[in-house]
Amino acid sequence: MSAEGRRGGRSARRAERTSSAIRSLPALRRKIPVYEVLNAEGLEMIHDASLRILEEIGIDFRDEESLAIWREAGADIRGERVHIPRDLLMSLAGKAPPVFTMNARNPERSTDVGGDSMTFGPTYGSPFVRMFDNERRYGTLDDLAIFHKLAHMAPALHNTGAVTCEPTDSPVSRRHLHITASAIRLSDKPFMGPVTSPERAQDAIDMAGLVMGEEFVKNNAVMVSIMNCNSPLVWDETMLGALKVYARGGQASILAPFTLAGANTPASTVATVASLNAEALAAIAFAQAVQPGARVIYGNFLSTVSMKSGAPMTGNSECALMNFMIGQLARKYNVPWRSSGMITGSKIMDAQAAYESAFNMMPILLAGANYIMHTAGWTEAGLTANLSKFMLDAEQMEMLHKMGQGPSFDDFDEAMDAIREVGPAGHFFGTSHTQNHFQNAFFMSELADNNSFEQWEIDGSKDMTKRGFDAAEKALKDYVQPTLDPAIDEAITAFITKREEQIPAAFQ
Amino acid sequence: MSAEGRRGGRSARRAERTSSAIRSLPALRRKIPVYEVLNAEGLEMIHDASLRILEEIGIDFRDEESLAIWREAGADIRGERVHIPRDLLMSLAGKAPPVFTMNARNPERSTDVGGDSMTFGPTYGSPFVRMFDNERRYGTLDDLAIFHKLAHMAPALHNTGAVTCEPTDSPVSRRHLHITASAIRLSDKPFMGPVTSPERAQDAIDMAGLVMGEEFVKNNAVMVSIMNCNSPLVWDETMLGALKVYARGGQASILAPFTLAGANTPASTVATVASLNAEALAAIAFAQAVQPGARVIYGNFLSTVSMKSGAPMTGNSECALMNFMIGQLARKYNVPWRSSGMITGSKIMDAQAAYESAFNMMPILLAGANYIMHTAGWTEAGLTANLSKFMLDAEQMEMLHKMGQGPSFDDFDEAMDAIREVGPAGHFFGTSHTQNHFQNAFFMSELADNNSFEQWEIDGSKDMTKRGFDAAEKALKDYVQPTLDPAIDEAITAFITKREEQIPAAFQ
Repeated sequence: MSAEGRRGGRSARRAERTSSAIRSLPALRRKIPVYEVLNAEGLEMIHDASLRILEEIGIDFRDEESLAIWREAGADIRGERVHIPRDLLMSLAGKAPPVFTMNARNPERSTDVGGDSMTFGPTYGSPFVRMFDNERRYGTLDDLAIFHKLAHMAPALHNTGAVTCEPTDSPVSRRHLHITASAIRLSDKPFMGPVTSPERAQDAIDMAGLVMGEEFVKNNAVMVSIMNCNSPLVWDETMLGALKVYARGGQASILAPFTLAGANTPASTVATVASLNAEALAAIAFAQAVQPGARVIYGNFLSTVSMKSGAPMTGNSECALMNFMIGQLARKYNVPWRSSGMITGSKIMDAQAAYESAFNMMPILLAGANYIMHTAGWTEAGLTANLSKFMLDAEQMEMLHKMGQGPSFDDFDEAMDAIREVGPAGHFFGTSHTQNHFQNAFFMSELADNNSFEQWEIDGSKDMTKRGFDAAEKALKDYVQPTLDPAIDEAITAFITKREEQIPAAFQ
Repeated sequence: MSAEGRRGGRSARRAERTSSAIRSLPALRRKIPVYEVLNAEGLEMIHDASLRILEEIGIDFRDEESLAIWREAGADIRGERVHIPRDLLMSLAGKAPPVFTMNARNPERSTDVGGDSMTFGPTYGSPFVRMFDNERRYGTLDDLAIFHKLAHMAPALHNTGAVTCEPTDSPVSRRHLHITASAIRLSDKPFMGPVTSPERAQDAIDMAGLVMGEEFVKNNAVMVSIMNCNSPLVWDETMLGALKVYARGGQASILAPFTLAGANTPASTVATVASLNAEALAAIAFAQAVQPGARVIYGNFLSTVSMKSGAPMTGNSECALMNFMIGQLARKYNVPWRSSGMITGSKIMDAQAAYESAFNMMPILLAGANYIMHTAGWTEAGLTANLSKFMLDAEQMEMLHKMGQGPSFDDFDEAMDAIREVGPAGHFFGTSHTQNHFQNAFFMSELADNNSFEQWEIDGSKDMTKRGFDAAEKALKDYVQPTLDPAIDEAITAFITKREEQIPAAFQ
């Protein structure tokens, strides 16, 4: 009998794949304490400094309607400069919900955002990719489809993201339609929305309505979008345009100062945090002025800048300390907060990429961030989405997901009995405790190689980066597209066709 | 004028090198809080379970004199099995000093061990090396010399270690003489002592006496040595032999359960910690029975074991959680504690090596370990000392040293003035605050490449591992041997000659 015959042939294998649900971890419910680096006095000093920035220096909102909204709310407007009295600021910010549900088209993949819930998402926005051949080139829709499929399959990724790589073969003006359709079709996890214009934001909301119902989308968050502040202290028209659409449309917005500490903030961690905190608070309050109760996430993107080369740096002491501080502030304001996890300046998936990603991510886990972007695939300060790193990072996030659940005393008595049974000089493999608990006791990486040197040589002396690319190839063979009602699928196609007739193709 | 002439020629450069002190960081005085994962009840449960292990199961001390010491102290001895009543155990353990000074031959390199002091040391005990050609082979005395020189030069390494790699070209029976001489001559930092027999331990003490004075060595710790427990619950004759010599000789001992969690402990983090805590406490108490006030360090070496392959694993969720717990226990007992930092099962310096090292080390920093071994160069579960990783890890430890000092509010007002001065949409490079503070504001790695892709290509498209080897080569060119009184140098040579006449060469 042939090997093929024994296994039942191609159709049997396909049936098995289709029937088996993907392995999927829920949002991490953090059971370990948060780590805090500031005492109460330090926290208050930063908070107060942020309020003084907004009262005394002010912040620019470069959008007429936004200025009108601020004026109406009671802020002091001078040109584009908005001065926000602290009572007004805190009263508006206090309207933001501390926790909200992020709804997926498959309700099993919906998650909470906020409180003790932590979710992990892939990298976002890279123009370049390194795919199977590890060569750096511009990304395409096909590359994006690969990332969306792998995000769907990665157990510890709680959303599909959106523009994991820029699909540069699609016109900029129409790209958001194809990115959104790809995320909706290839994965049933929550996804992210476009922010490059109000119209594009509305298109994404309309497409989500086709899948989940217009009425549902009006009343429930089905996507998260990210608006960056032009630090220092400028919110621009594009970001404000998207924010207004999403806030009014019931969708969630990350309001994220983009920090190059030392360049667009002072060369000081605490003053940097005071500055970015002012920016985030101003936008959180603004969103509430647009739509009371708007679902917002206190955002941040942190890097420090080399005072020798001007290059952004991450995975270092100051990024760790600032993440701890920001977590404390977000909890003080009782809003969900977002950070950026497995990030690096390395051009490739090498030791630098792993050091920086790990040294950046571990503090974020312990700081208790709620919505963590860039936890898989980021390299080159975000310029390249790396396929190997996507797989490797995603597995490390499974490890951190396990860590966040903390130690368990549930089987403590049984384990102590095993110590008694084995006594000095024995081993524990055969004890009933081990037999009962080995599967969940310790995290076991599939992509790390902990075998002997000799076995590793027999297996081809592969470094971890090679194993990451191999793992991506293997995973894609097992990919099964999640079910989508054919009528919905057709409606998405029809929507894109209609919109493409209305939107001229533009590559810039 | 030639380039050589402009710079003053070889002798001028040599003078400059000789005159310039090496860059060196003191022991980290931790200013950030410790992270604790156990509440008071959990901590008490583990503590109590450890005491019950020693009372009810007992622990083997496989050495006649040690059993006699225990009997004399009041323990219940049955064969080699020692049952230790909790009052006896805690009263003995309470005699251990909470903090002691680790003296270097250069007093500027002496450090505290314990309290809020944290020191970092290189990898220890690898039979294999990967040096400049990145080929795996047995280590030699020449390789060891390279590691000792680089440890001397590494700013964040606070000791030279000892047997960074095994010098396999030196007979086992005489090897300790050459290892100790190399550490003494090539570096002026504290070093570690041999533990493979009581005689070898005594040789190291005698050699230290030649350098620092016999009387001084009798009364002050000048080396730390490491004794591993044969877990579960066995202290063997070799380790006890060395421990007795060092305890009586005033020298410091790390008493370290060697944990392969799931193999020599139960498949449970909390029960594993209860078991290793019993082992460590028994040895701490024993050392005090040998010599009240003996300088000891609560030790541990942590790995988990893959239930699929039996391979040891590190840098994972369970190692992190166990490090946090052990830190809490050591503080409860008020003794210094040791952990193992930048460790990995990877055979090479790749992404796995960096992920595992970083994910292992960051929790140890936050757990506040006092004496951290294996913070530079460890690969292959300790079997290979990797020269590139030595350089790269050592630099990451500088980063963590900076992180441990926490955020500074000293220049907060000045930085807030800069925010006022720049206002919205500016940049901070030109502010007086930046000019005054940029040098110490952010950690700047020399070995990470955060330049543009194009610049990185121009620089040879090197991965970080290549840069690590290059950095080792460059550093060695700048190495200057620390001054040692020629009479002492001769005395060391004479001592080795005398002992080699007494000790037959044996390679096994």
